[in-house]
Amino acid sequence: MERPTRSVESRMRVRYKETDQMGIAHHANYITWFEVGRTDLCRAVGVTYREIEAKGFLLVVTDVSCRYRAPFRYDDEVLLTTRLGSSGSRSITFLYELSGQGESAPRASGSSSHIWVDIQTRRPTRPPAELSALFARRSE
Amino acid sequence: MERPTRSVESRMRVRYKETDQMGIAHHANYITWFEVGRTDLCRAVGVTYREIEAKGFLLVVTDVSCRYRAPFRYDDEVLLTTRLGSSGSRSITFLYELSGQGESAPRASGSSSHIWVDIQTRRPTRPPAELSALFARRSE
Amino acid sequence: MERPTRSVESRMRVRYKETDQMGIAHHANYITWFEVGRTDLCRAVGVTYREIEAKGFLLVVTDVSCRYRAPFRYDDEVLLTTRLGSSGSRSITFLYELSGQGESAPRASGSSSHIWVDIQTRRPTRPPAELSALFARRSE
Amino acid sequence: MERPTRSVESRMRVRYKETDQMGIAHHANYITWFEVGRTDLCRAVGVTYREIEAKGFLLVVTDVSCRYRAPFRYDDEVLLTTRLGSSGSRSITFLYELSGQGESAPRASGSSSHIWVDIQTRRPTRPPAELSALFARRSE
Repeated sequence: MERPTRSVESRMRVRYKETDQMGIAHHANYITWFEVGRTDLCRAVGVTYREIEAKGFLLVVTDVSCRYRAPFRYDDEVLLTTRLGSSGSRSITFLYELSGQGESAPRASGSSSHIWVDIQTRRPTRPPAELSALFARRSE
Repeated sequence: MERPTRSVESRMRVRYKETDQMGIAHHANYITWFEVGRTDLCRAVGVTYREIEAKGFLLVVTDVSCRYRAPFRYDDEVLLTTRLGSSGSRSITFLYELSGQGESAPRASGSSSHIWVDIQTRRPTRPPAELSALFARRSE
Repeated sequence: MERPTRSVESRMRVRYKETDQMGIAHHANYITWFEVGRTDLCRAVGVTYREIEAKGFLLVVTDVSCRYRAPFRYDDEVLLTTRLGSSGSRSITFLYELSGQGESAPRASGSSSHIWVDIQTRRPTRPPAELSALFARRSE
Repeated sequence: MERPTRSVESRMRVRYKETDQMGIAHHANYITWFEVGRTDLCRAVGVTYREIEAKGFLLVVTDVSCRYRAPFRYDDEVLLTTRLGSSGSRSITFLYELSGQGESAPRASGSSSHIWVDIQTRRPTRPPAELSALFARRSE
C-alpha cells in the first residue's frame, strides 16, 4: 500500500524587492520559492541539500514549469506545499502548490525535474541507494 | 501563405550575481531573460511594452516553462531568440531558445503564455485590433 | 530620558538562488534583506509598510551602505537586527546588523536613509505626525 | 604626472523584473549593475574577472554604498561609468556613476571596496604585481 507522498509546507512573505511595477510578485520569483520548498523537503526527508552536495552530488534542474492563476502581493504570506513527484534511479520530480492562508484553491502550481549529477565530473550519476531512497515514494 | 514567424535576437552576458554555488547561471534567471526577449520582440513588432501599459493593457503571465540542456557560466554571452507562438484574441504565447555564440543546438528552450488584462480593472480583456494584430502570425 | 531605540529581529535562511559562484551569499542580497528588516520594523512600531503606501506615502531610499566582514552560506540562518537611526520630519535612517545564530560579532552591518514621498505627486513631503511619530526615537 | 583614471562605460536597459511596485528600478539592482561595470572595467584594463578567478584570486566585496538621486524606470537605458578609485597592495576601490542618455548629472553614484583573496585558502592575499598593476592608477 502506497503511503501518501511526503509533502512539506514552507511559509514566506513576499518581499518588496519581489514585486514589479504591475504591483504583484514577479513570476520569476516563484521559481526561486520552489527552491526554498525543495530545501525544506530535503530537510524533512532526512538529508539537507547542503549535505547532498557535501556527499558529492548535485540535483541539477532539467525542467521547470509554473501555472499562475492569481497573484501574490507585497507582504502576503505565501503558503508553499512541496511534494515528491515521480522519481527514478537518476532523476526526481518535485511538485509545488502556492496558496494564501486558509485558501482552498492554489494561486499557482508547478513542477521541477532534476537529475543526479556527480559534483566532480559534472556528469549524470546514480546516487547511493540510501540517498535516493529518501526521495522515493514509499509503499509499506 | 504563412510568413515565417517574426523572431528577434537578444544578447546579454551572464552577470556574476546570476551565478550560484554550482558555478553556473541559476535557472530562475532564464525566466527573467525570457522577459528581456519579450521586451525586444515587442519593440521589433512595432510597440514597446511600455507603450502597451501606457495604452492601458498588461500582458499577464499565465504559464511559463523551461527545459535546461547545458548551462551558461559567468560572463558567457547568451544568445536569446524569441518567437511568437500561437496567439488568440485574448492571449499570446512566446517561444524562446537560448544558445551560445555559434552553437547550433540551444542550451535551453522555453515558452510563456500571457493574457491581455485591462490595467484598470485587472480583468482579462480583448485589446484593440491594431494592437493584437502586431502579435499575430501573419499570412500573405 | 531616552528609551533604547526600538529594534526588531528578523530571521531568514540563505536561499540557493542567493549564492554565487564564490559559494557565498551574494552581497547585493543583503540590501534586499535590509528591506525585509524594515518591513518587520514597520510592523513592530505599529503600521505595516503596506498601510503606509495605502495612506499615500512612500519611503524612498536615498542612501544605502553595507560593510561585509564574514560571509553567509547557503542554508545559513541569518539573524537580522533592524534599528531606527536618526529621523527628521522628512527622513528616516534605519540601521542593520546581520549575524549568525549565537554569534556576538555581526558578520555585516549597514544603513539606509529614506525620505517621505507623496505617492501621487512623487515629491518629498512631511507625513502626518501620527505616522512620523511611530518612527521617532522616543524620550520619556 | 597622473593620467586620468581609467574608466569604462556600460549600457543596459532596466528589466521588467528589476522594477518594483513603486514603478521604478528597485535600489538593490544598482549593486548588481555596479558588478556589471566591474566586469567591463576588468576587461578594459586587460584581464577578465573570469581569468582573475582562474589565476586563483577573488575580489571579495568589503564595502558598498550607493546614493540615489533620481530613479530609473522600466526599459530606460542606463549609462554606467565605472572608475578605479584608490588601490593598495591588497585592496581596490571602484567608483560608479549612473545616468540617463545625454544627461549631465548622474541619477545615482556609488562605490565598492574589495580585497584580494586567495581562492584556495579564502584568506586575504597580495596578488602578483602584473595583476595588481592593471588596477593601479598610473602616473607617467
